[in-house]
Amino acid sequence: MQKKLIALAVAGLVSVPAFAQSNVTIYGIVDMGYKYQGDNVNSSVKNRNAIDSGISGGSRIGFKGTEDLGNGLKAGFVLEQGILADTGTSDQSGRTFGRQSFVSLSGGFGTVAAGRQYTPAHAILAGNIDPFGLGKATAGSIANFYISEARLDNLLAYVSPTWGGFNFVAGYTFNASGNEQSPKLGGTSATDVRAWTIAPTYKNGPIYLAANYHKLDPLESGEPSTKVWDLAGTYDFGVAKLGAVYGQRKVDDVKVKQWALTGAVPVGAAGKVQASYGQRKVDADGAEPKVSQWALGYEHALSKRTALYAAYAQQNQNREQEAISRGDFGSDAKALFGAGIGDASDSGAAGYQRGFNLGVRHSF
Amino acid sequence: MQKKLIALAVAGLVSVPAFAQSNVTIYGIVDMGYKYQGDNVNSSVKNRNAIDSGISGGSRIGFKGTEDLGNGLKAGFVLEQGILADTGTSDQSGRTFGRQSFVSLSGGFGTVAAGRQYTPAHAILAGNIDPFGLGKATAGSIANFYISEARLDNLLAYVSPTWGGFNFVAGYTFNASGNEQSPKLGGTSATDVRAWTIAPTYKNGPIYLAANYHKLDPLESGEPSTKVWDLAGTYDFGVAKLGAVYGQRKVDDVKVKQWALTGAVPVGAAGKVQASYGQRKVDADGAEPKVSQWALGYEHALSKRTALYAAYAQQNQNREQEAISRGDFGSDAKALFGAGIGDASDSGAAGYQRGFNLGVRHSF
Amino acid sequence: MQKKLIALAVAGLVSVPAFAQSNVTIYGIVDMGYKYQGDNVNSSVKNRNAIDSGISGGSRIGFKGTEDLGNGLKAGFVLEQGILADTGTSDQSGRTFGRQSFVSLSGGFGTVAAGRQYTPAHAILAGNIDPFGLGKATAGSIANFYISEARLDNLLAYVSPTWGGFNFVAGYTFNASGNEQSPKLGGTSATDVRAWTIAPTYKNGPIYLAANYHKLDPLESGEPSTKVWDLAGTYDFGVAKLGAVYGQRKVDDVKVKQWALTGAVPVGAAGKVQASYGQRKVDADGAEPKVSQWALGYEHALSKRTALYAAYAQQNQNREQEAISRGDFGSDAKALFGAGIGDASDSGAAGYQRGFNLGVRHSF
Repeated sequence: MQKKLIALAVAGLVSVPAFAQSNVTIYGIVDMGYKYQGDNVNSSVKNRNAIDSGISGGSRIGFKGTEDLGNGLKAGFVLEQGILADTGTSDQSGRTFGRQSFVSLSGGFGTVAAGRQYTPAHAILAGNIDPFGLGKATAGSIANFYISEARLDNLLAYVSPTWGGFNFVAGYTFNASGNEQSPKLGGTSATDVRAWTIAPTYKNGPIYLAANYHKLDPLESGEPSTKVWDLAGTYDFGVAKLGAVYGQRKVDDVKVKQWALTGAVPVGAAGKVQASYGQRKVDADGAEPKVSQWALGYEHALSKRTALYAAYAQQNQNREQEAISRGDFGSDAKALFGAGIGDASDSGAAGYQRGFNLGVRHSF
Repeated sequence: MQKKLIALAVAGLVSVPAFAQSNVTIYGIVDMGYKYQGDNVNSSVKNRNAIDSGISGGSRIGFKGTEDLGNGLKAGFVLEQGILADTGTSDQSGRTFGRQSFVSLSGGFGTVAAGRQYTPAHAILAGNIDPFGLGKATAGSIANFYISEARLDNLLAYVSPTWGGFNFVAGYTFNASGNEQSPKLGGTSATDVRAWTIAPTYKNGPIYLAANYHKLDPLESGEPSTKVWDLAGTYDFGVAKLGAVYGQRKVDDVKVKQWALTGAVPVGAAGKVQASYGQRKVDADGAEPKVSQWALGYEHALSKRTALYAAYAQQNQNREQEAISRGDFGSDAKALFGAGIGDASDSGAAGYQRGFNLGVRHSF
Repeated sequence: MQKKLIALAVAGLVSVPAFAQSNVTIYGIVDMGYKYQGDNVNSSVKNRNAIDSGISGGSRIGFKGTEDLGNGLKAGFVLEQGILADTGTSDQSGRTFGRQSFVSLSGGFGTVAAGRQYTPAHAILAGNIDPFGLGKATAGSIANFYISEARLDNLLAYVSPTWGGFNFVAGYTFNASGNEQSPKLGGTSATDVRAWTIAPTYKNGPIYLAANYHKLDPLESGEPSTKVWDLAGTYDFGVAKLGAVYGQRKVDDVKVKQWALTGAVPVGAAGKVQASYGQRKVDADGAEPKVSQWALGYEHALSKRTALYAAYAQQNQNREQEAISRGDFGSDAKALFGAGIGDASDSGAAGYQRGFNLGVRHSF
């Protein structure tokens, strides 16, 4: 195919190949709203008012397609770009297709996919546990305190078929180095890593159960490994869907325990009340600084594609900042401490924070 | 919606959501041509011959869509990327959707839009006054001497309904700071700002009248505010459409007065002669350096989507360079001085410049 | 058109222009696979295992369209972005549409195109000679040793009509400088250049013959010119298509001679065996370091759009490294030495290399 395409180009230098356009579907979200952040400690940003992008769901544009190869085999691709629509720039540190970019082959054997993809942990939390969808900038998201790797570069992933509600995802990133841009953790500043991940899930009627384990081994010697496991589940009572998650992260000697309780209550045909409470606690050297957060939100669907949303959340940080400053946990510990409310890149310096947001999310 | 989409992704890790593709329209312009620039003073570029992008209109690709929400309410989005097609790079300093990126809700109340958007001033000048469409690289554009902010990040804009030909646009950018990329002026190197803008327009038959006021307050203390107002109008006599604009910009103590007279004359069904003359003058400290430019162009439509164009312009700069060098206007004044002919990023050092261009603009 | 579009925007500030979507075709490739590279000398990367993008063909997404202007005249555009799908970033050093971005006018006179485009040399090698399609990351590609400029910025190209199988391509990049991003060689670190290129080809039944000459004159004085010519041809015997290419590059005093023999053998309806052997030799100062490579591959089409591929190649480098280190060829010579197997950005330090890859290429 490649050769044929280029051959056409040679004939005219201005020709390029194309299959029927129906091969490609364009989709995305533009989510913009007002966001307020405030805190009571000596942060440089006491009160922040802003028009922000991606509050309840990251703004994005994606291109995807599938091809039926016959015999139950399918090929597919996804190229999805994160957008900071308030400034017209690319999200995920400026990557072009930083949200997802992979090719896949599916069949009776399951699905094999290669490229930049979500971690199973992220898929569990964002798709099932967090009623705010793990929106990275919303006040309500458990991502404001529950730490989790979002994506892996160079990931070779396998998704099993579903057997009576059970399936699993397994993934590996090879030991790339040299000129290759090696696997890096999505959204964190961690060093290059080789990653293993496995996540079984069970879904049957109102019940959803999931587990996740992943291990990140830095390619540079001297850097500590990160070992992560999470247990999660939800039960849909109809009048409300309740969920819970518990997880542990161990980086070198530092262990972080984190958990959340979540709930979503439908209100009429178009409304939904969202709530969550949770904590993150560091077990190290006797000191036990912790962060806790509660959040309440409401989302109102104007259509299947467009919704208005509002959320309020409050976060208390107990001695985290002073402990970090003192170096109680070593230099690695700093990377363990999450974001302030509604801002995953904040250093979490504040002892008390609250956030409010109000916006519109339009899918296409 | 968000949650449902991600839930799908969890099931397979490789699934992504999509609505019918008809939600999205792809549009754009690829504009390429030959450009000559020459000047008579000791600039490093005496004579420049080039194949350039975006001469009569910035090359771009955009994605947009609207959704009918019922009850007269509509949601919509625009993601528009500027392209330097001669080198295959992004325009607007490399931004992904640097031309426009916003979401909007429209109804009987008007339109509310949030994101990166044009300033009303730019819309007035580009869409109505400049017969060259404010093309940033064309020899003819009044943008070569008439200074105006093109876009604002983080803008919350309101567009009123039209009452008997009258409507207005109002906009505000919140006081964002901290980790947020704060509003910056499109196309200038100015500091982060909080911006106010209001622009009433009146359009009735052959008459078009518009006014603009905007104020840019830097977030960093010590930086001067910029206050801008413009008055503009056109009258369409049928055989010709004549226009005029007068504006003032005040940055700290430095006041800039600028004006232009413009005209467009249809020639047959497909042709159009474009002409403009104008000046920019600085009122400060007794010195009155000024720039004046005249331009003549012709555009020939090969179809509704494709046109050939040619333009010639000549610019005289009276003492601007030496005044700037002496520091007559303070360091802030430098940012007030516009571009050389057909090159908005040129420092405008030349005392005399002329430019010629010839190219093709293809819209899709 | 431009003015009308912007006029619409003025009315609402949120409107943008659009023609029917059928104007634009979206196409592309996502190519991902496993890649092994090994070598026997003191390189820092002895054994590299990775999941890589674009092995048998650069991953990409493109937008293109044509418009019938009547009277046999057509306008068209191509905007094509290279993608490193393993990390979700842009290829071609991060350029947005780094593969191709141009506008064209075609008619009985041929085609004139302006923008960033392939060199004729690249089109000849990739489309006709190399059975691996000059895939930049595949073990098999002759690009691992046969040096050739891939693209030119700011190129004004002319493609002649075809007379009895004969046609030619000619191109020129103007002497841009100043604020203009000047023509740079695609994929090399060379300085800004003004380029000339001409390439006649003949195609008739099983016969394909092509010649290429291009000259790159750096804009900065003191930099040496590069003069390149290539002769190439293939003959399709049906059971096999055999090809050959010979070329010379002269940079200042250093002359490089390079050649390759290639073959492709169809296996059944869906398979294809690919093979190539070739050398690059430097003629300078008595020293004659050389690189030779042989490659064997197999490609199996799952459909017209999707293929599996595998390739193995081995490369021997005779004294190149030591000769470069000694400075036998001057500092300019370093740029002449190509890549290691399957990695065009490798410095070619190794004396012996081998590579293997296995992957899937999905076109859309």
